[in-house]
Formats: sequence, structure tokens, C-alpha cells
Amino acid sequence: MCGIFGIHKHAEAAQVAHLGLYSLQHRGQESAGIVAIVEHGSARGVRAMGLVSEGFDPAELSSLPGDIAIGHTRYSTAGSSTIENAQPILSRFRGGHISLAHNGNLTNATEMRTKLEDEGSIFTSTMDSEVLVHRLAKSAADAPEAKLADALLGVEGAYSILVLIGDTLLAARDPRGWRPLVMGKINGSTVFASETCALDIVGATYEREIAPGEIVAVDRAGVRSASPLPPEQLHRCIFEYVYFARPDSRVFGGSVDRARRALGRRLAREHPAPSAELVFSVPDSSNSAALGYAEQSGLPLELALIRNHYVGRTFIQPTQAGRDAKVKVKYNAVREVLEGRSVVMVDDSVVRGPRLAGWSR
Amino acid sequence: MCGIFGIHKHAEAAQVAHLGLYSLQHRGQESAGIVAIVEHGSARGVRAMGLVSEGFDPAELSSLPGDIAIGHTRYSTAGSSTIENAQPILSRFRGGHISLAHNGNLTNATEMRTKLEDEGSIFTSTMDSEVLVHRLAKSAADAPEAKLADALLGVEGAYSILVLIGDTLLAARDPRGWRPLVMGKINGSTVFASETCALDIVGATYEREIAPGEIVAVDRAGVRSASPLPPEQLHRCIFEYVYFARPDSRVFGGSVDRARRALGRRLAREHPAPSAELVFSVPDSSNSAALGYAEQSGLPLELALIRNHYVGRTFIQPTQAGRDAKVKVKYNAVREVLEGRSVVMVDDSVVRGPRLAGWSR
Amino acid sequence: MCGIFGIHKHAEAAQVAHLGLYSLQHRGQESAGIVAIVEHGSARGVRAMGLVSEGFDPAELSSLPGDIAIGHTRYSTAGSSTIENAQPILSRFRGGHISLAHNGNLTNATEMRTKLEDEGSIFTSTMDSEVLVHRLAKSAADAPEAKLADALLGVEGAYSILVLIGDTLLAARDPRGWRPLVMGKINGSTVFASETCALDIVGATYEREIAPGEIVAVDRAGVRSASPLPPEQLHRCIFEYVYFARPDSRVFGGSVDRARRALGRRLAREHPAPSAELVFSVPDSSNSAALGYAEQSGLPLELALIRNHYVGRTFIQPTQAGRDAKVKVKYNAVREVLEGRSVVMVDDSVVRGPRLAGWSR
Amino acid sequence: MCGIFGIHKHAEAAQVAHLGLYSLQHRGQESAGIVAIVEHGSARGVRAMGLVSEGFDPAELSSLPGDIAIGHTRYSTAGSSTIENAQPILSRFRGGHISLAHNGNLTNATEMRTKLEDEGSIFTSTMDSEVLVHRLAKSAADAPEAKLADALLGVEGAYSILVLIGDTLLAARDPRGWRPLVMGKINGSTVFASETCALDIVGATYEREIAPGEIVAVDRAGVRSASPLPPEQLHRCIFEYVYFARPDSRVFGGSVDRARRALGRRLAREHPAPSAELVFSVPDSSNSAALGYAEQSGLPLELALIRNHYVGRTFIQPTQAGRDAKVKVKYNAVREVLEGRSVVMVDDSVVRGPRLAGWSR
Repeated sequence: MCGIFGIHKHAEAAQVAHLGLYSLQHRGQESAGIVAIVEHGSARGVRAMGLVSEGFDPAELSSLPGDIAIGHTRYSTAGSSTIENAQPILSRFRGGHISLAHNGNLTNATEMRTKLEDEGSIFTSTMDSEVLVHRLAKSAADAPEAKLADALLGVEGAYSILVLIGDTLLAARDPRGWRPLVMGKINGSTVFASETCALDIVGATYEREIAPGEIVAVDRAGVRSASPLPPEQLHRCIFEYVYFARPDSRVFGGSVDRARRALGRRLAREHPAPSAELVFSVPDSSNSAALGYAEQSGLPLELALIRNHYVGRTFIQPTQAGRDAKVKVKYNAVREVLEGRSVVMVDDSVVRGPRLAGWSR
Repeated sequence: MCGIFGIHKHAEAAQVAHLGLYSLQHRGQESAGIVAIVEHGSARGVRAMGLVSEGFDPAELSSLPGDIAIGHTRYSTAGSSTIENAQPILSRFRGGHISLAHNGNLTNATEMRTKLEDEGSIFTSTMDSEVLVHRLAKSAADAPEAKLADALLGVEGAYSILVLIGDTLLAARDPRGWRPLVMGKINGSTVFASETCALDIVGATYEREIAPGEIVAVDRAGVRSASPLPPEQLHRCIFEYVYFARPDSRVFGGSVDRARRALGRRLAREHPAPSAELVFSVPDSSNSAALGYAEQSGLPLELALIRNHYVGRTFIQPTQAGRDAKVKVKYNAVREVLEGRSVVMVDDSVVRGPRLAGWSR
Repeated sequence: MCGIFGIHKHAEAAQVAHLGLYSLQHRGQESAGIVAIVEHGSARGVRAMGLVSEGFDPAELSSLPGDIAIGHTRYSTAGSSTIENAQPILSRFRGGHISLAHNGNLTNATEMRTKLEDEGSIFTSTMDSEVLVHRLAKSAADAPEAKLADALLGVEGAYSILVLIGDTLLAARDPRGWRPLVMGKINGSTVFASETCALDIVGATYEREIAPGEIVAVDRAGVRSASPLPPEQLHRCIFEYVYFARPDSRVFGGSVDRARRALGRRLAREHPAPSAELVFSVPDSSNSAALGYAEQSGLPLELALIRNHYVGRTFIQPTQAGRDAKVKVKYNAVREVLEGRSVVMVDDSVVRGPRLAGWSR
Repeated sequence: MCGIFGIHKHAEAAQVAHLGLYSLQHRGQESAGIVAIVEHGSARGVRAMGLVSEGFDPAELSSLPGDIAIGHTRYSTAGSSTIENAQPILSRFRGGHISLAHNGNLTNATEMRTKLEDEGSIFTSTMDSEVLVHRLAKSAADAPEAKLADALLGVEGAYSILVLIGDTLLAARDPRGWRPLVMGKINGSTVFASETCALDIVGATYEREIAPGEIVAVDRAGVRSASPLPPEQLHRCIFEYVYFARPDSRVFGGSVDRARRALGRRLAREHPAPSAELVFSVPDSSNSAALGYAEQSGLPLELALIRNHYVGRTFIQPTQAGRDAKVKVKYNAVREVLEGRSVVMVDDSVVRGPRLAGWSR
């Protein structure tokens, strides 16, 4: 899980991307980065370990002029947690610069990498995403979108990607549509983001999602779309709805809030709790599902756990030790709500069934 | 508003205080500090600007051995935002060390300070709290609690304070009881804290609140209580219930959650919204009140605003500029919930009346 | 050993003090600080652990407007190595602000401190210098220089001090003249510094040294001098000449270079090395003495040890561990110069006699 | 100008490399890095902007176990001053890892790079050194030294390089011998360094210099040497003797101190100063030359400029602004030595002739 954001033709492209990454922070806290086209297709990037709010200072962002930018927040799935693995990847090739931001996992990355290495290629990270850059650089096609089509042909697995080549911004989703990617507009500028909440924060209007298998190219001439990849059976990741995405976002063309609410209602039907007196959530990721459970069951929704806002997101810490230390200070119960009552607690494991428990301290 | 925490006779006193401050972080984000008695009444402290999670590293805390400690999280009310104004105050006097952590504002601090200066005293901070240390040092009494009674006689305004003199830990509240202060126990150790959520996090059991005008002294011999100050009309600060304290805390002998819930119900009675279709809160400080409004009005509670957890608490930033920049990235609406509907939004201004509005984007 | 610097009536007083401290860095690397009078006698200060080049950023210095400033570089002799013990001390008293920067050790500080504590005073540092601030605040005299005379009467030991009270800058030396202090002028501004090298760096002209027992006061009306303290036998610290001061400085009215050169010549007379083939120094503190030895003995001066400039000053690190680790990477021998030859090495222990040795590796 | 260091088969390889880089700091202050072989040929690196003493903490170094390591200190000649351009370069290829540390400038880098890009290669830095890594990865040869011979054939310009492939450490110098590179031994371990002062600091014994055009390979089986490149006319860089290298080093098979001394003597013969009374140097880079001038001319050597040790090396700051600000606080004259006298000042421009001047202030 990662967050990606791109903007084409905006006077403060890097600053807008920075703001967009703020609202995609929940998709990855390990590292963040922004690459901007500074002039004549020349690219410059900043990358940092940790949170968007920690890694960049205003001086660094203002060192990124230009009107096209892409950004990335990383949660490590493939590749270790180091600055070398922060994205966007920024490389130089015969045609100038290639920058790439990737959300997803490629299932045949090892095979593609071995093939590239056999041809003498070198790699500077352990990320599967780096093979895409090599494949882009090797394409003999002229148009950036044709290069990307060449590069993606034969790639298996999940990818929602943003690519900068020269002054062309490319967006693409794999044919199965594993990961979300949406497009919006703000005063004539084109915006891409993993979730619509990033459109909201920058004041952009939602246009549509990028279709599975689609490549969208934006340059000075306008927006072009193509679907050069063979179609596949859809495989949208259910966890986007369950806990990856924010409830104020639309992903896969639907509302995350509505989807979670529906999961909660279905949970209430499949796992009713007739003796329970109330339902509560583990805030905040399970709030919507708990509300759905309450709606369906008629049980009152209670706010029984208080979250300490000065501790980062539990789920997303790469090591178990980091997770444990933070959980300890993260939640506290409101005893007056829980003491002596039969309750339903809804948490992220909602797809597996609710926890029914009598509460005592 | 500040948070204070103290513990007497615990093998890892400074670490426990550190944990306690984590759960009092919402009471002040400007600076934090811990003072521990390291041996034979000798005191050592660490203080840092910013959050508890940022300011201290394990090496600093482990440099604070000893089994008595007090801690403080500061929100600036009197005195500027500098490291000199971080608490606990740590001073040396004829009897050894005095350390003091103060929550509240003294209304006659200027008069007391002028009098002390006329006697030749010097001050190193701009905090009203510093006059209390001078008054403690000047007391001719022997027992620490008698010194504190001397020091507090004639002091006007709000104070919940923790004081370390030698190996005695003192806790006191002003006679009007403006600010909360509770006492708990953990395995024979005595704990004091602004709110019970800090007892919960360290695993302590709630005993009782410190009474208005009471001084409690804890030393190797045990716990003593006295009420040497003239009684006054109670004036507990209503804002503790409205938004200072955490809903999982007990303050002033009552549940914050219950109090906020009752405020919400009363709001629904005094300001009914017959045409509204739903009620929602500005998370998280207004959650309990919104739930009360929903209970009373019969309107469904909705979760219509999503909070970005990677931005600090809005209210608590000292400058307006800091507040504004953070609000912009802090909340986003769930459009599916709000669009085209008549709503009640409950926020921190609940005591002044609800906001009734039709929502459109 | 510490360095002190003061300037009166200069448009960029804090920046000039900062520059001056750069050239007094050799007198103390533990912490540094600057206090400036920002308006109407209001004072503001910055203090930091470590080097002048590390502790302050331009933003901090530009937060110190005003045309009067004093600064300090600290080497810990009395009091532990903490930010609380960084100078200048900045306190508030009935007359406004007192700031004080002190070089030297007071021998009756404990007695004075006990007396002050018995009167109810509190202390916030472990520095002997803090008693001077208390004594200043308690003086009933009106004129700042009269306050300082009151404060210094009865003080024993070494002090060269700079004091800011309102818009008056005071400079004083103890009657024995233990530590150096000089006065200079730059475009009508008055400058004080521990050594003349600090006058050079800011472009000031040397005027004279402050006399033992003298108090100089500078305010908008001009410069006044008084010698209110009983005279004492002079006791200027010989180590200023041997290794504290920089050879490009004048201290105690004489050139450090000339003094060290003379020590080297005397060493050659008292400890001749007839079989030696060359003389070399441990750079840089012993360079002048080695040159003197060479002049007197007729032996050629060689540069046989190379100093790594990326390691801090050896002598001045407070802990032995810090000293050892740094010595290891600090010097290397030029083998071609030393191999197989009889040599005289001159180091800081010059007053005890030279080291005569055959060199082999 | 850069510094390189390598060690093969030492229990604390990364720590030894760290120490070695300390003594090569004068060759580059812009960034530093170390790569170590951690197990089974797997490599891990740390890189940081700034000084060796600032960039790395003990935890980072201890994260680099293994018994083979190379290190680099960088002064930017080709490529901008960013972390992406810090060395050693660490890449993965079909044969595992390649790490490379390079001192020198390649004159046909652009042509080689264009050719590689035309074949589809991508670059992640702007350093000429990166082409060497690509060429290594593309070699079809089996033995690491054969790969390196393939890679270097046709490369023009200056290079002293260290390369890690698997558990083989390679060292090579270009056929003209532009930059120095020496080999030493410590308890059976093989050490390579730009200058012998880095051997001294780690306690290694000097063996010999790497010959121009030579490739040395060290692996578990031992040390092998080859000279596969066509011989060229020698072109050793004179500036190594004039001011790059440290005077306690041997480079190009000779003593830097002796070479500088000889330059100073020749200067005295070619530019005698019959009316001068003394000679002095701009410390420390001109000390040896000034001594040579003194020896030849019979003039006394004086120490007339004092260097502030708390400011970094002037020459080496990439921007003029940085150089200017630092020069201002860097040197001060000893007036007693200079005033009213006719002097010879020897500085880094010694090859162009001495500065003869009467001194007055």
C-alpha cells in the first residue's frame, strides 16, 4: 500500500503535491517524496524517511519550481525500509528524465529483473518498481504513452502508477484494477491521486477513475487516453474498502464510507448479537463499519475507546516492536460506557466477524 | 491549561511519569518536562520544547534514576513560549531542591512578584508559577507541607500543583478548585495526575480527587493530608468538561463523557432541530456531545467529517497562523453523508448553541 | 576558563558579539550564549550547548535586535555541563533585567551562596556566577556601577565580568587581575573582550586593558571608570600566556606570542639539548614556544606533527574519554623529518621542561 | 579531488574505514560514505552529506558488519552536491553487488554515457563515476579483475578507484597515474588509501603505491596484480604535492613534506627577497613550503598568522559565498611579528611566486 499524487500545469505544482500527500499519508508513513519538472524537462526531487509533515521544509519545496509534479508516500511491501527505496524514482535516460511513483506489487518482478540483469542492467534499489523504469528506458517507441505501453506489456501484478517523461505526465492502472487511481481537475490543471480525499484537500473536482488497463497521458497539448493492454478479469483489492482508504474517499468508483457501512450491516445480519446492549468501534478505521452494524442491529452506537492523537497509526509501523509500544499508549476505554455491559466491538477484522464480549475491568 | 503528573516510590519513576505525560499531551503541546529525585534529595530534570514523543530520548530518561518524579506538559497562558518557561521549575534553596509543576493561572502574581522583587529577588522566567517557588524558599516552616501552606496563603487564582522538596512529594489544589487533580495507587506507589486517563495508562487505580484547598504530602512515612487554606466558593472550570479533558477521564469527581453527553442532550432540548435529518460532530472533541444530542433528539448520529491524524491538535497551537495552516489539512467531509441533507453539526462551541445548516458543496 | 565579549551602541550588536565569540571559541567549547537589549532595556538571549558555529542559526540572531549585547563561551570549571549553566545569565529584578557573563572562579562562592539561601534566595544553576546576580539585585544603590561595586565588595577569587543592567554595559576585573579583559573602539562603539583577537575580528581598535579592581560603565552618556574595590597583590594567571590565550592576542598588557617565545627561549637556556638535531612543537598551542626554543638554541625548527583540522581542540573536552578518542585521530608524524634523529618536542607542559627523545617508529 | 579507502579481511572493516576517512577528510568535505560486505557477498552502505565526524553515528556503523569495506570522501568536481552523488556507489547486477569509490575525473564520460543511454541504460546520479559501474555490469568476463579491465579499457582521464564485487576488493589507477593510491598491510589485512596518512591512522604499514595502469585484486585466496591497460605517458597531478595531500603523507612514491620543502627552496632561489627580514606561511597548507624558503634563504621562519580552528577548510567549500564568510573569521595576524617589517608570505600560490610585502596595519 502506498499513496500517489500527480499534477500537470499548476504554478505551484510541488506545493500542491505536498498538500495532496498530506491526505494520502495514511497509505504509507515510511517515506515520502516529490519530483517536479523544473525547466525544459529537467527534473528535481526531494525524498525523506518518515512523515510528510516531518521530512520536508519549505526551503526544500521552494527549490522545486516548475508546473508538473508527482509525489509518493510509501508503505514497504517489497524492498527494505531505506532512503534508497523511497519514491518517486528519478533516473536519467537517453530521452531526458524518467520519474515514477508506484502503488502495488508486481508478481513477476524477479523474472523481469533477472532478464534485465542478464542484459547488463544495474539496479540501485530493492524495489520491484525499478524494473518499470528500465523497461521504459529501453522502449524504442517515441511517444511517452507508447513507451509506457511497451514497458507494461507482460508486467503482472498490481500497479497504479504515475510517470513523468519530459513534460508529459502519465497515469496507468493494471488491467485487473487492483489499486485505485482517480483523476480530477482544478482550474484547468489535471490531477491524479490514489483517493479522492487528495482531490478534496487541494480543491480539485472529481472527474473519474482511471480504468483498469488504461493509460492516460497529459501534456501541453491536452489529455489523451489509450487502453493498449489485454483486458483481464477485475480483481479490486477488498482491503481498500476495509481499511486502506479513508472513508471520505471514493475508490473503484464507489464511496468508502458506503462500502464500510454496508460491511457493518452485513456483519450484523450474519453475526447478530441479540444479548448485546451497545456497539462500539476501534477508532477510527472501524467507525463506519460500527455505524453500519448499529444501523442494522438497532443497537446504540457508543464511543467507548478514546484514541491518543499524539501517537502514529498502529497498523502501518513496519516492525512488531514499533506496533506494540505504540498500541499501549494509543487507546483507553471510557469505563462509564462499558462497565458491566454486553457489547459488540467492531475492529479491522470485521470481515472475519465481530467480537462479542462482556466487558469488565 | 497544562497537564501535571507525579509519582512517589516507584523503581522507574521517570519512565512512569513519561508515560503519564503521553496521556496528558492534549493539555499542552508547547513544552514538556520531567524532574526526578536521583539520590539523597538531589534532583535532576529534562525539559524540551514540543511533544512528549519528540522531546526526550531513552538516554535522557535513563539519566533520571530515582523513585520520585513529577512531570508537566505546557500550554502557554502566562509567559512566552520558550524553553525558560518549560516546567517543572527546578531550583535550589537552603533546604536542597524545590521542583514545581503548575496547572492554572494566578491572578495576583504581579503583586506577589513586585513584592518579591522589592525584597531583592530575581526571576529567570516570565511564568507566574515562579513566585510560588520563591515563596516556598522563603517559608520558615520545617515540614514541606507547612512550607507549601505558607507559600499558598494569600495566593489567588487557579492552581493545581505538584511540588518536590527533598523526598517529599506534595500535591495541592486552590480552594476554588478551578483545575482538576486526582490521586491513584499502583502497587503501593502514590500517583497524582490532572486526569484519570493518566492513571489508566500507567495501570494505577483511581483513589479520589484532591479536594479544593487540600494539601497532600507523600514521603517515606506515608501519606498526610491537610486543608490549611481558608475555604472559598467552588469555581470549577466548565471548559474542562467542554473540551480540555479527555472523555475517558474523570475530573471534578465526575465522568467527562457523561458530562459532555449531558451537555449534548441539554443542547438538543434547548435548541431542537426538527427539520434536521442527522447530527454529526467535529471529531474528536465534540463526539460525546454529538452523541448526547443524538440520544435526546432521536436523530441518527453520523460520522461526516474525517480527521487527518497526521496533523496536531488544532485548538492548542499558540499562534493563529499555526492554527489556520493546520485546519486546512485537518478535516474533510464525507460527501455521501452530507450532500443535500439538513444537518446538525456539534462542535466545541456547544455551550453557545448548535450550528444548523443545510449542506451543499 | 571562558571567553566574554560585549559591545555598546552598535546597530548589529548581536551579530558583532557572535563574530567576537568565534574568536574566543578556544576559551570554551562547552556552550555559548548572547544576550541583547532589544528595546527600552528589555533583554533577550540565545544559549546553546556546543560551538558558536553550531549552536546559533541566522534566524535566532536576527531575533536579537538592539544595539547593546554581551556574549560568553563556556569551559566548565564550576558547575556541570548543562544548558542551565550556559551564560550569559539572564534574570529579571525590580530594576528590569540583569545579564551577566563571567570568566573566572569565585573562591568564597559557597559562603556567599549559603548566606543568600539563608535569606530565602533560590538558585537555578550550579554556577558560582549566579551569586553575583543575586548580589546585584539586592543592592540598594541607584547607579548600575554602584550596584556592581556593592555586589563585588567582599567577593574573592577571579572574575572578569560583563554586566547589562538596563542600557548600561558594565565591565569589571577582580583586584588581583586573575583573568584578562580589554577595551576597544569601533566607530564610536565600545567593545570589551577577553582577548584582543576578538577586537581584531570585529575590526575594533585596542584601547587598553581594564585595570585590576576597575569598574567601567558605558551608557548613552558615555564611558565612566571607577576603582571602588580595595587593591590587592596582582595574581595574573600564568596559564593565559602558556596555553589559554591565542598568540595573536594581547592579554595583561603584553603580547602572548612574545611571552610564549620568551618561555621557549628560557626553556632552551634552562634545559639545553646539545645532542638534538631539531626542535618541533605539538601544533598549534606550542608553536610560539618551540620557535623561541629554536631561536635560543640555534636548532632548526621543524614541522614534524600534522594536525587533523576536522577534530576539535583536545585539551578542552570535559571528559577524558572524549579527549582520548580525539587525540588518536588528531596528530600524525612526518616520518621523513623525525626518523633516526635526536629531537626536542615542545608541548603545553613547557613550564615543566622539554621532552628530549630519539625518534624511531 | 576525493579520498578513497578500502580494507579486506578485517573483523571491524567498516570501523577501520571510518577511521581512515577521518584522515582523508581534507580531500573532500562535501559528503562521505562507507560500503561493507555484510555476508555472502551482500553489501550495505551508509552515506551522508558533510563531514565524516558529523554524518555517521555509531549505530549506523555497527549496522555494517562484515570484513571488507570501502569508503569515500567527496569534493565535487563532476556532478552536483547532493546525496545522490555521494559515494561509494552501490548497485546490484546479475553477479550480485558492485560498489565503487572513485577519485578523479573521466574526460570521455559524456561519450561513454551517451553510448550506454543509447543502449537503454538509466542513470541515477550526475557523476561520471556511474558509467564505470554500468561498464562493469556489462562485462562478460568472469573474474572480477577481468571485469574491471573490460570496464576500464577505453576510459580516458583520471581515476584511482576501489571496487567491491562479491568478496573481491579491486584497486586500480589510470595509466597516466593522475591521482595517488597506495597499499598497506595490517595484521594480514590489505589496506588501500589515497594517501599514507590514512595507513598511519589505522596502524597499517606502507607497502607500495599502485602502479599507473595496474589493477590489484584481493580476495580470500590472496592478492593478485595485473596491468592489462595500454601504457601511457605519466601525468601525475602536481597539485597533490602543492596543496591537496597532507604533508605527513607519501604520494606518487615520495614524501609530500619533502616535495613542498623543495618547492619552497626553489622559490627562494628563483624569487629571492634580499630586503626581507622574515618569512611566514598561510597556515597550514603552506607551512612546509615556507620552511623550505626559510632554509634556502636563511631568513628566519616566523609564525605570523594564527588560524581559528573552529572554522572548516577554506579552499574546499563549493561556493564562493561560503569561502568568503569563512575566510573572514579564519586568520588573524600576530602584529608584534609583522609590524614595520619587510616580509615574505608563502601561500598556496607558491608555484606562481611568493608575495613580497612590507606589512603595516
